[in-house]
Amino acid sequence: MDDPLAELVMLLARLPGIGERTATRLAHYVLGADPQYAAALGASIAQIHERVRHCERCGNWALDPLCRVCADPRRDPGVLCVVARVPDLAAIEKSGTFRGRYHVLHALLAPLDGIGPDAIDVDRLITRVREEGVREVVVATPLSVEGEATALYLAQSLKPFGARVSRIASGLPHGGELEFADQITLGRALDGRREL
Amino acid sequence: MDDPLAELVMLLARLPGIGERTATRLAHYVLGADPQYAAALGASIAQIHERVRHCERCGNWALDPLCRVCADPRRDPGVLCVVARVPDLAAIEKSGTFRGRYHVLHALLAPLDGIGPDAIDVDRLITRVREEGVREVVVATPLSVEGEATALYLAQSLKPFGARVSRIASGLPHGGELEFADQITLGRALDGRREL
Repeated sequence: MDDPLAELVMLLARLPGIGERTATRLAHYVLGADPQYAAALGASIAQIHERVRHCERCGNWALDPLCRVCADPRRDPGVLCVVARVPDLAAIEKSGTFRGRYHVLHALLAPLDGIGPDAIDVDRLITRVREEGVREVVVATPLSVEGEATALYLAQSLKPFGARVSRIASGLPHGGELEFADQITLGRALDGRREL
Repeated sequence: MDDPLAELVMLLARLPGIGERTATRLAHYVLGADPQYAAALGASIAQIHERVRHCERCGNWALDPLCRVCADPRRDPGVLCVVARVPDLAAIEKSGTFRGRYHVLHALLAPLDGIGPDAIDVDRLITRVREEGVREVVVATPLSVEGEATALYLAQSLKPFGARVSRIASGLPHGGELEFADQITLGRALDGRREL
């Protein structure tokens, strides 16, 4: 393309949640900003794939063969949290409530879209459960149809290998109003009630 | 910074309207996407300042000394549309309703913020009006306090030089409901009424 500005808008508009209008605004901002900022941002994006790779053990983003979580000796190898994607792992890390290790599936079962067990690679997970002495697998896939199907499939696949398999709780979010909750969430919140 | 992913999030979060949450999502998307896309987007951003400059005549973004509008012999040099910023020019171009040339101020009068006439450089505009044989100056600064103050200042400054000075119309937007219009817009729409 012979117009660098139009090219930049087109490339920015491929980002998720960025339409042509926002992409145009961002491109004009970059043009109007300090050239050093544009150079730094451009280099950061262009080099990110060379500088960041997948952790050999869990699939998280990593700068070294093992990610920060896997390389941390204070993390409990006996509890494994299974997530669909790295951003989910990052969200759990940010909550600061989990001290075990992770396992990133990079996929969810979606039979309607033709995505079957092959995409999940449960054998890799089973190998980890056996070799790392995992006592409990916490399945933290989304509370969606695909996430629930994947959780069920993992629970069945892991049954013969001795580790407990648990599922993150479903219920009303923090600050959630009963009046505005959907029926499924409300039903799950009632089913999952705990004694006070 | 020793974490390229955190660095990328920080740089993306400096873009207007992009908070840390969105920046994190975009960074993960770039990492998960085709490395060729990251290379193209990164290069496009890093090189945009070298490849795009200001038009010597009107201040629009340009690939050559003159921008596309100024270099187009079919544009009427007798009508000059004054805008505050290049994105405003781009929006007018997209509407396809203006066939004259532009003049970008790159600023608006804002006495409360200490931005006075020096920031506007009205002499450059006056020189253009005289040298390019401008018959009409259409002031298309925003309908804000700063935009109106700038329009008034330009009208007074241009008075001695013979060109007509006009202001873009103010009124209800296309599809606008009277019920939801603010009082000032409604007042302007009434004041600016035209015979049918």
